[in-house]
Amino acid sequence: MENANTKRIIVPEAEEILGKEIKILDKGFVRLVDYMGGDAAIVQAARVSYGEGTKKISEDRGLIRYLMKHRHTTPLEMVEMKWHCKMPIFVARQWIRHRTANVNEYSLRYSEPKNDFYIPKLGEIRFQSIVNKQGGCEEKVPDNLSQIIIDTIICNSGQVISDYEWMNDSRISRELSRIILPLNLYTEWYWKNDLHNTLHFLSLRLDKHAQYEIREYAKVMADIVRKVAPFAYEAFEDYVVNSVNFSMQEKEVIREIIFGKNINEASKKLTPREKREFIEKWNDIIENKK
Amino acid sequence: MENANTKRIIVPEAEEILGKEIKILDKGFVRLVDYMGGDAAIVQAARVSYGEGTKKISEDRGLIRYLMKHRHTTPLEMVEMKWHCKMPIFVARQWIRHRTANVNEYSLRYSEPKNDFYIPKLGEIRFQSIVNKQGGCEEKVPDNLSQIIIDTIICNSGQVISDYEWMNDSRISRELSRIILPLNLYTEWYWKNDLHNTLHFLSLRLDKHAQYEIREYAKVMADIVRKVAPFAYEAFEDYVVNSVNFSMQEKEVIREIIFGKNINEASKKLTPREKREFIEKWNDIIENKK
Amino acid sequence: MENANTKRIIVPEAEEILGKEIKILDKGFVRLVDYMGGDAAIVQAARVSYGEGTKKISEDRGLIRYLMKHRHTTPLEMVEMKWHCKMPIFVARQWIRHRTANVNEYSLRYSEPKNDFYIPKLGEIRFQSIVNKQGGCEEKVPDNLSQIIIDTIICNSGQVISDYEWMNDSRISRELSRIILPLNLYTEWYWKNDLHNTLHFLSLRLDKHAQYEIREYAKVMADIVRKVAPFAYEAFEDYVVNSVNFSMQEKEVIREIIFGKNINEASKKLTPREKREFIEKWNDIIENKK
Amino acid sequence: MENANTKRIIVPEAEEILGKEIKILDKGFVRLVDYMGGDAAIVQAARVSYGEGTKKISEDRGLIRYLMKHRHTTPLEMVEMKWHCKMPIFVARQWIRHRTANVNEYSLRYSEPKNDFYIPKLGEIRFQSIVNKQGGCEEKVPDNLSQIIIDTIICNSGQVISDYEWMNDSRISRELSRIILPLNLYTEWYWKNDLHNTLHFLSLRLDKHAQYEIREYAKVMADIVRKVAPFAYEAFEDYVVNSVNFSMQEKEVIREIIFGKNINEASKKLTPREKREFIEKWNDIIENKK
Repeated sequence: MENANTKRIIVPEAEEILGKEIKILDKGFVRLVDYMGGDAAIVQAARVSYGEGTKKISEDRGLIRYLMKHRHTTPLEMVEMKWHCKMPIFVARQWIRHRTANVNEYSLRYSEPKNDFYIPKLGEIRFQSIVNKQGGCEEKVPDNLSQIIIDTIICNSGQVISDYEWMNDSRISRELSRIILPLNLYTEWYWKNDLHNTLHFLSLRLDKHAQYEIREYAKVMADIVRKVAPFAYEAFEDYVVNSVNFSMQEKEVIREIIFGKNINEASKKLTPREKREFIEKWNDIIENKK
Repeated sequence: MENANTKRIIVPEAEEILGKEIKILDKGFVRLVDYMGGDAAIVQAARVSYGEGTKKISEDRGLIRYLMKHRHTTPLEMVEMKWHCKMPIFVARQWIRHRTANVNEYSLRYSEPKNDFYIPKLGEIRFQSIVNKQGGCEEKVPDNLSQIIIDTIICNSGQVISDYEWMNDSRISRELSRIILPLNLYTEWYWKNDLHNTLHFLSLRLDKHAQYEIREYAKVMADIVRKVAPFAYEAFEDYVVNSVNFSMQEKEVIREIIFGKNINEASKKLTPREKREFIEKWNDIIENKK
Repeated sequence: MENANTKRIIVPEAEEILGKEIKILDKGFVRLVDYMGGDAAIVQAARVSYGEGTKKISEDRGLIRYLMKHRHTTPLEMVEMKWHCKMPIFVARQWIRHRTANVNEYSLRYSEPKNDFYIPKLGEIRFQSIVNKQGGCEEKVPDNLSQIIIDTIICNSGQVISDYEWMNDSRISRELSRIILPLNLYTEWYWKNDLHNTLHFLSLRLDKHAQYEIREYAKVMADIVRKVAPFAYEAFEDYVVNSVNFSMQEKEVIREIIFGKNINEASKKLTPREKREFIEKWNDIIENKK
Repeated sequence: MENANTKRIIVPEAEEILGKEIKILDKGFVRLVDYMGGDAAIVQAARVSYGEGTKKISEDRGLIRYLMKHRHTTPLEMVEMKWHCKMPIFVARQWIRHRTANVNEYSLRYSEPKNDFYIPKLGEIRFQSIVNKQGGCEEKVPDNLSQIIIDTIICNSGQVISDYEWMNDSRISRELSRIILPLNLYTEWYWKNDLHNTLHFLSLRLDKHAQYEIREYAKVMADIVRKVAPFAYEAFEDYVVNSVNFSMQEKEVIREIIFGKNINEASKKLTPREKREFIEKWNDIIENKK
């Protein structure tokens, strides 16, 4: 007997981009190799848990929003996506920290590196931020300095690959020759993860504190995830990415603002850093920024 | 050479309660069997990541609060706790869903059940909530009805254990005889988890939507975690338990309230459920509830 | 551009059974809801790791066997399967211990139990083994005793569901009423896992020491996994299920046997239990048992 | 009340080395920062599962050997160890693939690299193996070639750190400057894992196919694990490291050998690679190699 239950969930928008490389940075890419399920798979699993019958489409969106809002995340784990990615090693090193994924990476013990290095473009060179210890800042780097930096990176990459090839020609083992290779060398992997953990990955890597290069990957992947599970992605944006969290102390500040204190007075109990962060969040609300 | 680095981190408040059973429900307990680290271990790990030198104690609290606020949770994983717990099977079934823990549970294939069943007390019987599909409600159950329910549970437990013993006496295999045992039978396990995941467990199980019985365990464990890592637990309360999250849509409602709309008018774009939830959160702020 | 890389891997044998319930025990079932990949997906991922080009089909089998033999298991994680299962709670309790899976289980807080209890059949009642503390034994249970046991289980299930319904009619909350329900009540879940971890699950649950009831599920699932990834399943049988492991001490026993000692003499350094286990393994080889 | 149950398990041999750096390679180290439990903790957890009372010490060893032999690994998860390690990035990249561990790594976004590069010594330079695609071979590399390789690595490292420092002096952000750093740069981390998964890590990284450099770390860690849980480590050596596994096909070969066929004749059904591997394993038994 053929019925709805015996058919795989197919998402037409996702089918269209299946297997297609989307270019990122100068030589990288991601492509969605396969996916299992979509919004319908979330609903299917949630309804087993909650024992309800099938509902009509308008309620699927509501159910998914309810799950996301209340952090009932297990139905989101019922969607799986597999990606083929090419990225610089320093990006791969941040990415691999997400431990729930399955990974098969190109091995430099088995094979020689391809001559593919990440070379940033003029606008991509940035100065060290002073307030933000972990990142760059907005101040523009003069083009001539940027060009020197880029030339240094190119020169370094060229020197290293030439040394590597010489070692290789001397029959030195690949596992040893590779130790001179730099972190801007491109690597490749298959990466498979469920939707819940992929969204968690995106929430961290879309963040403005994430490094520019990995953020470029996160943006492209976010667009693809949106195609695979549009209701879930919309809910993720509304309840996670664009939501705001106020600590217990900040709730007291808000209360004082509501009762008429000005924001400076109300937030004076916070530490300077917390005060700065609170005002930023509060202004985002007032100015209707996401 | 003896120095600070070669000593284990010991937390005197935790040492005092180490190994001691804290009673829960009618026959259950938890006891902290062992712990590794405390606030100092979080700071130690964070400082390896961020490459900073040792700082004085007042800054430890600040660093831990910063980590918790910005969800830099990996240093919290450097603290580990091991528990010995006794709880009804229906509680164990909810608990086991937290998959990062290591577990060794009493096996009814190897051993016979002890005659220990959870029998709720008068005040613990509750009616089904209508608004909240998953829980009980506040309406008081009359004592005489409660007593009948309790008697039914006692009677059921007694009948089952007697049937079990008869099957056992007839040499039926334990793995088969046990299938008639009810979910209010007590079981025991050793449960080991890191601090980050233990706090996540607590955040879900301290929640008012968690079932009363598992919440009783969460409360006791929370008190113990607070002894093991007081700064981390304080930060967890301020930034997670007692914090509030507003979705993108709710931020727009807040903006309209700030600009003078009344709450009813401002929140009319939300769904009825979302509106109810928003008003509840907003009133909690105004009334200074945690 | 359409090419091989942009197509999903489809396994015709798996498509045929997709979504179809296979009955297990008296009222249980499993059905494969969806799968991602098959043998070809293992090969695809392995070849990214090892940097080799596409090879012809006969070599796929060889590559998969090589991976399985040398426990290079990460390419096996690139295949994912999702199942819908219905089984007694005592089976679910063993099953849930496999922590890498994603699970959505029917909740007795949200919904009432269906009147579905596992009632073993005459031949399924077994005596407790004396040598094997965790299981039953081969000795046949007389039919009249089996029938009494079965009647006891039926009677117990009937009594409990009647008590449950009465509590439910009295408006007692479902989360509380359910605590009298026994472990032979059926539950349902969606269960999703990768191939490597599914094979690990099967290796433990197909084992003769696994409880009869969960082994019935493992057998049916094994047949389905064989359809999804036939080369991988064949290699799993050859290198895991039907392989034999000899400890360092047992290797010394084998050496003495090769040099002419009889098996009793050679194995006398082993403990009695180890000797018994060694002789069993050795005889399996001589008698050509799997 | 003070009793055995309220005391932490302390292992005197482990206490002695707690916190002490053991040097590895030219500039690396590991040190055991903390541990939870030891053999006694394994026994403690196993006895909760199997419901048995405390037994005398000689039986602890037997129980642990039984658990290891039958792969009842959950009690081994009740022991936890935390390490501080310093190793080259290419070693860290292999190591991080073990996903069950908790990790806090030195961040090159927050801090500048120390001028610490792995420079192999004369005897550590090896040629590429032809049979083993992933590793080096035994053939000695002439000292003068080795020296040129070493000089190349030193020169490369010096050039890179000088370029890095220049970029840093030009105020380029650390997260960008670091992309030219090579894989032989040292990094540091805190790494925490349970005993079961640490043994799994060791079984893979002590293996002769593991890269020399990570094997050096595995050897030192193995010595330390042996101090923390000597019975468990002994059982691990006997039942895992020094055990041998024969596939279904190899069992048939053994049967034919037992019945008098010579090894060449008996193994002719195996593929050439499998035959070579079988003969190697069989000879190890005959020659009493571990």
